[in-house]
Amino acid sequence: MAKEFRIEHDFLGEKQIDENCYYGIQTLRAKENFDITKTTLSLFPNFIKSLAKVKKACALTNFELGDLTLEQKDAIVQACNEIIDGKFHDQFIVDPIQGGAGTSTNMNANEVIANRALEILGHPRSTYDIIHPNNHINMSQSTNDVYPTAIKLTLYELIYKLKDSLRFLRDSFHDKSVEFKDVLKMGRTQLQDAVPMTLGQELKTFAVMIDEDIFRLREAQALLKEVNLGATAIGTGINTKKEYQKKVINHLRDVTGVDYESAGDLIEATQDTGVFVHISGILKRVAIKVSKICNDLRLLSSGPRAGFNEINLPKMQPGSSIMPGKVNPVIPEVVNQVAFEVIGADSTISIACEGGQLQLNVFEPLVAYKLMNSINMMRRAFYSLGEKCVKGITANEDVCMEYILNSVTLVTCLNPILGYEKSSAIAKEALATNKRVYDLLLEKELFTKEELDELLHPKNMVNNYERKDS
Amino acid sequence: MAKEFRIEHDFLGEKQIDENCYYGIQTLRAKENFDITKTTLSLFPNFIKSLAKVKKACALTNFELGDLTLEQKDAIVQACNEIIDGKFHDQFIVDPIQGGAGTSTNMNANEVIANRALEILGHPRSTYDIIHPNNHINMSQSTNDVYPTAIKLTLYELIYKLKDSLRFLRDSFHDKSVEFKDVLKMGRTQLQDAVPMTLGQELKTFAVMIDEDIFRLREAQALLKEVNLGATAIGTGINTKKEYQKKVINHLRDVTGVDYESAGDLIEATQDTGVFVHISGILKRVAIKVSKICNDLRLLSSGPRAGFNEINLPKMQPGSSIMPGKVNPVIPEVVNQVAFEVIGADSTISIACEGGQLQLNVFEPLVAYKLMNSINMMRRAFYSLGEKCVKGITANEDVCMEYILNSVTLVTCLNPILGYEKSSAIAKEALATNKRVYDLLLEKELFTKEELDELLHPKNMVNNYERKDS
Amino acid sequence: MAKEFRIEHDFLGEKQIDENCYYGIQTLRAKENFDITKTTLSLFPNFIKSLAKVKKACALTNFELGDLTLEQKDAIVQACNEIIDGKFHDQFIVDPIQGGAGTSTNMNANEVIANRALEILGHPRSTYDIIHPNNHINMSQSTNDVYPTAIKLTLYELIYKLKDSLRFLRDSFHDKSVEFKDVLKMGRTQLQDAVPMTLGQELKTFAVMIDEDIFRLREAQALLKEVNLGATAIGTGINTKKEYQKKVINHLRDVTGVDYESAGDLIEATQDTGVFVHISGILKRVAIKVSKICNDLRLLSSGPRAGFNEINLPKMQPGSSIMPGKVNPVIPEVVNQVAFEVIGADSTISIACEGGQLQLNVFEPLVAYKLMNSINMMRRAFYSLGEKCVKGITANEDVCMEYILNSVTLVTCLNPILGYEKSSAIAKEALATNKRVYDLLLEKELFTKEELDELLHPKNMVNNYERKDS
Amino acid sequence: MAKEFRIEHDFLGEKQIDENCYYGIQTLRAKENFDITKTTLSLFPNFIKSLAKVKKACALTNFELGDLTLEQKDAIVQACNEIIDGKFHDQFIVDPIQGGAGTSTNMNANEVIANRALEILGHPRSTYDIIHPNNHINMSQSTNDVYPTAIKLTLYELIYKLKDSLRFLRDSFHDKSVEFKDVLKMGRTQLQDAVPMTLGQELKTFAVMIDEDIFRLREAQALLKEVNLGATAIGTGINTKKEYQKKVINHLRDVTGVDYESAGDLIEATQDTGVFVHISGILKRVAIKVSKICNDLRLLSSGPRAGFNEINLPKMQPGSSIMPGKVNPVIPEVVNQVAFEVIGADSTISIACEGGQLQLNVFEPLVAYKLMNSINMMRRAFYSLGEKCVKGITANEDVCMEYILNSVTLVTCLNPILGYEKSSAIAKEALATNKRVYDLLLEKELFTKEELDELLHPKNMVNNYERKDS
Repeated sequence: MAKEFRIEHDFLGEKQIDENCYYGIQTLRAKENFDITKTTLSLFPNFIKSLAKVKKACALTNFELGDLTLEQKDAIVQACNEIIDGKFHDQFIVDPIQGGAGTSTNMNANEVIANRALEILGHPRSTYDIIHPNNHINMSQSTNDVYPTAIKLTLYELIYKLKDSLRFLRDSFHDKSVEFKDVLKMGRTQLQDAVPMTLGQELKTFAVMIDEDIFRLREAQALLKEVNLGATAIGTGINTKKEYQKKVINHLRDVTGVDYESAGDLIEATQDTGVFVHISGILKRVAIKVSKICNDLRLLSSGPRAGFNEINLPKMQPGSSIMPGKVNPVIPEVVNQVAFEVIGADSTISIACEGGQLQLNVFEPLVAYKLMNSINMMRRAFYSLGEKCVKGITANEDVCMEYILNSVTLVTCLNPILGYEKSSAIAKEALATNKRVYDLLLEKELFTKEELDELLHPKNMVNNYERKDS
Repeated sequence: MAKEFRIEHDFLGEKQIDENCYYGIQTLRAKENFDITKTTLSLFPNFIKSLAKVKKACALTNFELGDLTLEQKDAIVQACNEIIDGKFHDQFIVDPIQGGAGTSTNMNANEVIANRALEILGHPRSTYDIIHPNNHINMSQSTNDVYPTAIKLTLYELIYKLKDSLRFLRDSFHDKSVEFKDVLKMGRTQLQDAVPMTLGQELKTFAVMIDEDIFRLREAQALLKEVNLGATAIGTGINTKKEYQKKVINHLRDVTGVDYESAGDLIEATQDTGVFVHISGILKRVAIKVSKICNDLRLLSSGPRAGFNEINLPKMQPGSSIMPGKVNPVIPEVVNQVAFEVIGADSTISIACEGGQLQLNVFEPLVAYKLMNSINMMRRAFYSLGEKCVKGITANEDVCMEYILNSVTLVTCLNPILGYEKSSAIAKEALATNKRVYDLLLEKELFTKEELDELLHPKNMVNNYERKDS
Repeated sequence: MAKEFRIEHDFLGEKQIDENCYYGIQTLRAKENFDITKTTLSLFPNFIKSLAKVKKACALTNFELGDLTLEQKDAIVQACNEIIDGKFHDQFIVDPIQGGAGTSTNMNANEVIANRALEILGHPRSTYDIIHPNNHINMSQSTNDVYPTAIKLTLYELIYKLKDSLRFLRDSFHDKSVEFKDVLKMGRTQLQDAVPMTLGQELKTFAVMIDEDIFRLREAQALLKEVNLGATAIGTGINTKKEYQKKVINHLRDVTGVDYESAGDLIEATQDTGVFVHISGILKRVAIKVSKICNDLRLLSSGPRAGFNEINLPKMQPGSSIMPGKVNPVIPEVVNQVAFEVIGADSTISIACEGGQLQLNVFEPLVAYKLMNSINMMRRAFYSLGEKCVKGITANEDVCMEYILNSVTLVTCLNPILGYEKSSAIAKEALATNKRVYDLLLEKELFTKEELDELLHPKNMVNNYERKDS
Repeated sequence: MAKEFRIEHDFLGEKQIDENCYYGIQTLRAKENFDITKTTLSLFPNFIKSLAKVKKACALTNFELGDLTLEQKDAIVQACNEIIDGKFHDQFIVDPIQGGAGTSTNMNANEVIANRALEILGHPRSTYDIIHPNNHINMSQSTNDVYPTAIKLTLYELIYKLKDSLRFLRDSFHDKSVEFKDVLKMGRTQLQDAVPMTLGQELKTFAVMIDEDIFRLREAQALLKEVNLGATAIGTGINTKKEYQKKVINHLRDVTGVDYESAGDLIEATQDTGVFVHISGILKRVAIKVSKICNDLRLLSSGPRAGFNEINLPKMQPGSSIMPGKVNPVIPEVVNQVAFEVIGADSTISIACEGGQLQLNVFEPLVAYKLMNSINMMRRAFYSLGEKCVKGITANEDVCMEYILNSVTLVTCLNPILGYEKSSAIAKEALATNKRVYDLLLEKELFTKEELDELLHPKNMVNNYERKDS
């Protein structure tokens, strides 16, 4: 029977590797060293694919510069393409949270690609004199340029997906705002009755908010296009040929179809994590706003009898193991929690980025992990919010109108006629006597009924600009 | 005319000092170097007094060990006593946020005490051969033991005051819980109608919450009693006599009346900021809970017509520059903001404490500043909340009862008889038909009216344990 | 062929359930509604077991009160015991981050236990008239008391494990502190040379720090023993018999072997999340301190040629894909990242706890998720740090001693003799001339060589108290 | 004798106002209600001026629309101009942290302007029938549009100042990078020796980092130009004339000289605080990066004998009360602390913005306070860092070069020739034998001395791209 293990060595010694595995000794050491999350890189297929794209661009460049043979290049490129197609992801076994600034992730990729390339060429695994993880796959590279470049490729793609989910959510709110454009209701400031608006206006606000955040995400996303590939160890480009750096960026553009560009100062770009703090800040901005929206949905649907009860959210599941008939706003509730996760992730990322030292930030693995997780969770949550909650919202029009008719702050629109002080006195009396403002004004013969009906008509209050124009 | 300036020097050079000032060259350098907050140490009189207490305890010890003359000791002690009595605080001019791990604060104290002591003895300022800021006032000391010890003394006292404010707030809620013990209302979970309770129970909850936090504060406060006085530079006690360390703790106890004790390992105690992180965490706990209480008060008083409207908060000021008669819950709103400040301060403190290196945490000035500010703001906010808001709460009993009578989740108490599924069906029908559960049950002849009145009586639901016992 | 699906219904409709599954319709709805983390409850076996323990205690109580038959009770208890033994965990399929305040988790447990109990009794699944998830498994319970009680049981156990890992780490440092008790080195404050100490003292500090944190964890752990079981929906104990609440706590003690006790005010205990904020704050404290330790280890081992180079950490893996021979402090680096995760989790938990409203905090699922994750990650990280890093530390004694001999701050110990100003002048001259302090003092004939050798002997400086005593 | 008090009233009652004061009853109520920070609005002169600019633009618009007389308009505009010129700031007495969403600040402005305008017209104070704080000064306005607009004006200006301070800091680093462009030194990744670079490159990195942040600030600043003036209470423009909203924006542009524009959806713009979260995130980004720079400066200047000792920071003050001659990096240390403040402020702002409800975020006063404070502190800190630290940096060239000559990772540049594995072996041997790589290579006769001198010359390693081109 054939041997089940092969032996690999590095400058620290040697280890047995399962013969079936494409990864090698450095991956195995990392697997043993980092046992934190109980997950592996394969959680993030986009990231593995991005690594393969970077490796492919590098191999093409090294071949162009005469440093890889055609055979080596073809085998490496094929191996990379297979990974880009989703194969061998189970061979990426290292924990995404790791020491070493991503070296283990980079070496995991180097080893898997090397052994798969060897296999393509008909060689046994570990025959690294033919194709070596460091000498050939990692040629002209360092973890310190490959790893952050792969992170940026990944985030660039994930933000597209996130924007799609936000567009879906925005459209859900927009559709509802049209549906409820004539439902009059009280606006509230500081949870106190303010002045009338429509439910359509209230929900359109959410669509507008989200739309603005899509713009902000797009701006932030553009910052990800600046990469430090070619910087190698600390940004001085040690171990690369003079022409390498420009060429590898061109190949990266071809491989990805995105117009990535080289950072202006590669030493700066290698140690600076400003863009990750920036992205995290924008993600937090999105999270905070969607959380605020969820809070409002829960408030507006509070009740059904002892709450605001202006809208109904779709009933997704029984809400209590003890209270029959109770239904809870479970979808907004879970979206709130995702938002809180993202806010906490921003704290983590801030500390990690502040902690970088000199020519490198060693905490990039954590930063990448948190950013990818935040985006993935938000994306799922936003689709869920649109599909399972917003689309099914219904309005309790009678409840909404009743609040307006009983309100006191209707007097606000009399300010220009009566002045703030007299209006205040009438409001105060309405509250004290529990009377309607309308009745009180008639009683006091301050206006005729016709005047009042015109002045106090809620429809006249909900959009000053549209009203006057039409 | 007399000279207006005197000259002082240190190993970096010399500077002119205003003749009237008690502080000296190192204080002046620090004043010029740190211009961050536009405030001075005199913002924190407790802290200045604590510094003086520490200096006094040290002087008494040094005298006892024969290292200060009687005359020197008496002058220094008198100067310290005057500062403890509130004098010369305007001479503490350094910015509380400073580099140097508090050296500038310590030297500010050393210089002020030295020059005041010289004055007491009839000597001109700066005649440091007689009493020297470093050699005599700072004898057997380092900033690294004096400064954190003074912070701990200060926090210990401030937490007493904070607990007083919490007791006041707790009592305010407790009084109200008694006043409203018979006001029936709907309990709500997830903002949805749940089962009945009393308004008294709801407000008593807040009293109980606060009471628990007082206990937690007390526990945390006790941790402040461990000080590193005698550690000097890094905890090895360099430049102190063998007997010094035990004696100085005894003097500190006498001076303060608090049973401070020496840390078990002075090297550890000099660099460890765990207790500050701990205190900050407990302060955050308090802040979060009081913020939750304020959120609830704002929710329960929402309206007056388009909200929950179960309670009324006292009207403290007109609520709008445009909407007459509007009144806002301004006191809870400002208390929320104080809570958010404290939560943010905890982030700041966490980063500062994580950033300590080797034998010292250089960021202690920021940590002290944030902790003292957090406590001071919370104390003011809590008195304000008790006095200007809670004490004046009134209840809208009719509104509260109406919610119960209309509620659907009353069926919950029929579970043990009908089972969850039948109860659910009735609840669902009540919602769909907009009927009262009570009427539906009679209609279906599931119970007689007498049975129902007993079963569904809200009073039977608000406290299972009391009900059955009585 | 047997049917592959069974039909279940609730008050929102009906669904097909895979015949092989023990869970039912409410679990399935939750599975569809919450798709956030791509993980399931089975990530947390301790938590599933805790749920089963709570359900068992409730069943025993309900039987004792005559509300379950012997047959029902025995079947339920057996089902619970099996789950406690680790069976059926794959049936807990809901996402740990969920809306509904844990109702889905509770119903998942109710349904699995009900169907397994039915199976034990020989009945087909879903024959809920015999044993019903709500009526029997959830009898006298609500999610709102069961869920937080199960969280507390879980955290209580997990903190034991965390303390074990901290003890292991403490002992690792302690052993090293003994090994290096005679290695003299410079202490540093603010990264500047301070005064001598031993490497043993430096590492002992870490052992002492950790030891103190174990105490703080123990105190916090004790707070978890107060549970609200018996509170049901909002704390009023609706749907429980008068005797139930005391009895169920007794059963819980028997089942768990831990002396849990009832909260004093069940309404307060049901909505208050103070204990979770508290635990999180203590976890953050631990994280911050261990992170500081890791920072120090990385600093002390910096180099090997262009850094402090006082100690060597064990070489765990090649440190670079490009720089041959480079080895990085990967274990401390990954532990730092775990600490940052825990600090961020504390932010998340703070916001989640602040966001609770009225009689319940709906965000408890997130809070539990973050706390359990934080503890699990820290535990793994701490063992790793002790085993793979601390135990293998070696000292570069020559480097350490060389720093002392060259240091300037040796003059500190001359303060008591020369005074601060003269000592400063000598220090300044040593720096300017690049001479050793020792040579300078001899040159100036301020001391004889014998006096100096005694005065400046580093051994005399490293522990004032021990020195003088021995 | 003249009366010392005048009486004012509002709908809650009446109060005595000091006759000399320009503010009125609502300001006084707010002063009594909010006693949190012990500071007043006058801490922020830019903000008071911005309020006056907004009021002036509104008055000009109201006059143009025929709602104010020429006399009223002229008096109001004059009063506003005086405030813009810095007068009457002592009359802005309310606490910047306040409940009521800024109503007290707005009313403070309304009252001061009204009474000053009355004075200009020769009327006694409080003769509000002539010029009324609400009816005339606040005409066509609400706190909810005036207040956030004034905040945006303020932040817009403050960010200009912040950018100036960053430019100053950037230039400081840039000048030093030129000065040290030929100082060779070791680059470090993960605090371990990596490959050579110049000190000029290291410091230029900081200049580049800061420069990028100036761009990011400029982008964020532009978002502040969108204001909701004209929205009044909730964004529906209630109590404004149709033409008002466009005109008032035009007047605001004239008054400020900045091209402010109207938000597209005024309801959204009135409740959305996204821009404040955004600005805070960018400020945090700046803070994190500058903090990282300070950490590096402290590390590079560590020593002088037992640290990296590559650079010297200017000596700003004696560093210790006990250790003569010790000097600490106090300026970077205080800048770190400012950064931590800003990071914590971002947490506070995040929570405050998440907590907004429905048509308004009531916590805007806290948000404004934190943002203004963060910018002010950073600005002072950055000037200080540039002037008192960076400008005075000197290099220890010999130390820097010695590190390179002793380094092991020099073998990195042999990778392309020897391959990673052989290079690793040599590195390992160099470490084990404590020999120089250079000597070892000669000893092994792998290269001639000439070849080696060329290959290993550090100058060839510090910039691949420049080297090859020249």
